[in-house]
Amino acid sequence: MLVLDELPVEVQEQVAVCRAEVSALHAELPRWGLVVWTAGNVSARVRCAEQIGTDLIVIKPSGVSYDDLSPERMVVCDLQGRKIVDGTPERLTPSSDTAAHAYVYAHMDRVGGVVHTHSTYATAWAARREPIPCVLTMMADEFGGEIPVGPVAVIGDDSIGRGIVEVLDGHRSPAVLMANHGPFTIGADARQAVKAAVMCEEVARTVQIAREGQDGGKNVQALDPSLVDGLYDRYQNVYGQH
Amino acid sequence: MLVLDELPVEVQEQVAVCRAEVSALHAELPRWGLVVWTAGNVSARVRCAEQIGTDLIVIKPSGVSYDDLSPERMVVCDLQGRKIVDGTPERLTPSSDTAAHAYVYAHMDRVGGVVHTHSTYATAWAARREPIPCVLTMMADEFGGEIPVGPVAVIGDDSIGRGIVEVLDGHRSPAVLMANHGPFTIGADARQAVKAAVMCEEVARTVQIAREGQDGGKNVQALDPSLVDGLYDRYQNVYGQH
Amino acid sequence: MLVLDELPVEVQEQVAVCRAEVSALHAELPRWGLVVWTAGNVSARVRCAEQIGTDLIVIKPSGVSYDDLSPERMVVCDLQGRKIVDGTPERLTPSSDTAAHAYVYAHMDRVGGVVHTHSTYATAWAARREPIPCVLTMMADEFGGEIPVGPVAVIGDDSIGRGIVEVLDGHRSPAVLMANHGPFTIGADARQAVKAAVMCEEVARTVQIAREGQDGGKNVQALDPSLVDGLYDRYQNVYGQH
Amino acid sequence: MLVLDELPVEVQEQVAVCRAEVSALHAELPRWGLVVWTAGNVSARVRCAEQIGTDLIVIKPSGVSYDDLSPERMVVCDLQGRKIVDGTPERLTPSSDTAAHAYVYAHMDRVGGVVHTHSTYATAWAARREPIPCVLTMMADEFGGEIPVGPVAVIGDDSIGRGIVEVLDGHRSPAVLMANHGPFTIGADARQAVKAAVMCEEVARTVQIAREGQDGGKNVQALDPSLVDGLYDRYQNVYGQH
Repeated sequence: MLVLDELPVEVQEQVAVCRAEVSALHAELPRWGLVVWTAGNVSARVRCAEQIGTDLIVIKPSGVSYDDLSPERMVVCDLQGRKIVDGTPERLTPSSDTAAHAYVYAHMDRVGGVVHTHSTYATAWAARREPIPCVLTMMADEFGGEIPVGPVAVIGDDSIGRGIVEVLDGHRSPAVLMANHGPFTIGADARQAVKAAVMCEEVARTVQIAREGQDGGKNVQALDPSLVDGLYDRYQNVYGQH
Repeated sequence: MLVLDELPVEVQEQVAVCRAEVSALHAELPRWGLVVWTAGNVSARVRCAEQIGTDLIVIKPSGVSYDDLSPERMVVCDLQGRKIVDGTPERLTPSSDTAAHAYVYAHMDRVGGVVHTHSTYATAWAARREPIPCVLTMMADEFGGEIPVGPVAVIGDDSIGRGIVEVLDGHRSPAVLMANHGPFTIGADARQAVKAAVMCEEVARTVQIAREGQDGGKNVQALDPSLVDGLYDRYQNVYGQH
Repeated sequence: MLVLDELPVEVQEQVAVCRAEVSALHAELPRWGLVVWTAGNVSARVRCAEQIGTDLIVIKPSGVSYDDLSPERMVVCDLQGRKIVDGTPERLTPSSDTAAHAYVYAHMDRVGGVVHTHSTYATAWAARREPIPCVLTMMADEFGGEIPVGPVAVIGDDSIGRGIVEVLDGHRSPAVLMANHGPFTIGADARQAVKAAVMCEEVARTVQIAREGQDGGKNVQALDPSLVDGLYDRYQNVYGQH
Repeated sequence: MLVLDELPVEVQEQVAVCRAEVSALHAELPRWGLVVWTAGNVSARVRCAEQIGTDLIVIKPSGVSYDDLSPERMVVCDLQGRKIVDGTPERLTPSSDTAAHAYVYAHMDRVGGVVHTHSTYATAWAARREPIPCVLTMMADEFGGEIPVGPVAVIGDDSIGRGIVEVLDGHRSPAVLMANHGPFTIGADARQAVKAAVMCEEVARTVQIAREGQDGGKNVQALDPSLVDGLYDRYQNVYGQH
């Protein structure tokens, strides 16, 4: 069993930085209206496989209010989702979604952050098991095409994690709508995964409202694929500060 | 007539703790968008029947703004909804919904908290007198199935309280949509009842939006009952900190 | 021409109290989501006809942001909507809706406060020129029946004020939806008029959402008139602190 | 290449004032719900052609969070959208929409401010490529008629800027809905352009909701053109403080 206090000091420092970041990023979920009560979570990967033979995960504790989060209350797990003993006085249980997060980290090395919410409009598309068509330039920018739907997951095995990986591995979209459940998003780091969760809800909402117009949305057309490709390439390479 | 200052000191202390909790929980109603103006209320049971022969209720004063609530302004009543004389300078009248809350406490011993709101989407389903079908995993988690509808209540008798108890007694769901009126929720304590009110509005909103898709919602299917059972059991027993 | 500094001291004091109240109440408009930018206003009547032969009105200055309001920036007018010279360094122009407010005060003595907004859902019903049917107990409580529609007003005469008075005089509802324009609400004082504006938007939103259900809202039925009467009487006489 | 520190002192002062204004105005975008994450931007023209032969533009840096904006982080460009060397330690890249803003300033001398957002309802109309009909008095006031749609823009040339100018030059409306993209608004100064962005979203939302009524919105009629003209003239000339 891994014990945090016995790991190399530089790994302990990486964990501490990651806990502060993950704790702070949770504030973005209620801020952008993605969650109510405690129903959403952010995790990040600590890249320390070289030092200790395995990467670690930092994730929200289960059922704790967003107001009550702090860096030291973030839970540290291994890539099987097992909690690391960390010497803090509280013995908090990690999010009940930890197995799904862990499966994604274990099977997609490029992923540095994972977010799960039940944000309203994305979850509505998930309940319809309907991919969100790429009809907005901002969708082309961020998702590079439609946002896909994942399978209905069963309880008691790793079917949620497997469903996410099957859909997103090799896909441009950093978001998947798990059927009758809600969106999971990934990113190179936790901040990118949070951004994808915010943008996923925004486009889910905008496209649904676009289709509620007088003609039942028949004139809401998917963008031309070459325009989508051009927008996606530009956004991934030119946008932001470099 | 019960007089608060003449009750045993430990009961007075229980009441004081309960007043602070109920006062603070009212802030969650505007925070999560469940209420406008003064139109919603939270109550809690003080379990003191062993000491004084009856439990007591702590509830919001009628028509007072959420900004102006404080522990000492919470009103103490008995299980018939009659106000307890409490020696405070203000003589505030309890919520006009007190009789309904009191009826629930008197007839459902497991209930420790009750919440009533007119939250928009739950009230819209109530106006249609339509139960919310269980099409989301988060509904299976929290409600264990559909959210049921209660009867139209008449004025001047205990028909609201009776309607709530008839529907919720023996039901998994902690929420009932009273026809053309709005949701009432219950919980083992007031915090759980507030959580149920928050989740009730969220699923009411998400399921309605899910059904507003291009096909009129025909592909929004209820979850398989065995999946619902598995999710409900897991959530009630595993979720959160223990 | 009336000059504020030359009025009896007790009238000046009434005006000062009223300015503070009207300034503070404007914060409720953005708080409850009724307005964007500067597009809504509150006024109140100063009952001083006995002292100076005419009541006065206190109202928002035109085009000033809600952040920049203060008691001394509230504008004082007579019942013809003419500004009173008030000796303050700023010479602010009253709201461009002042004529409509003034007409209501001049013709409905029971009115102590008037509010005008373009709140989204109420304005949507106004654009359809469709009264809001009384299908919710909270509508029966506050409005005593349906919320009526007023006429399309022309520019350059007192048609808005006349339209409001024609509809609301003798009506239970404190709100009227002016066609293709938005809601005006009245009250015994400005706070009651603000409350009516908040509740008007809430029921406009809830009833519209109720009718967007799977059956096109055909099962959203108006409440029985005797139930409406019972609820309205109880709410007007029992609710709140007395 | 223009270097800010080498420009005349009065131009440097104009730039400093403009940076403070543009930085502060960005707070209005999340405040009124027009943007998520970093997806919207404000710019202003510095009128200094007399002094240095060309006007300048102040605009948001690309991909920077609204929380992290400050006057000195605003980027200064010329009317070709090329960044001015400004001697500040950070070398921030201007918004990826700078070319579109610059094109508008270069071709419409009356424009002093430009705003771009993906606000939800305006973008939904843009996805349907449907102008917003003038059915509300507040639309007549602010837009003087319908809000028009602009062309689908290609990547890699000045097609967005050209599309905006083609539609808005000579048009009363300060807003254009760029197809499948989102709204751009203009104004005599940046504050007016922000106001137009706020009002554009509000009317996009209200008109869409008006048309979602029981009859599919068939009774939502455009206002009489002479009423629109009267409202527009009055609002442009009488409203506000003068």
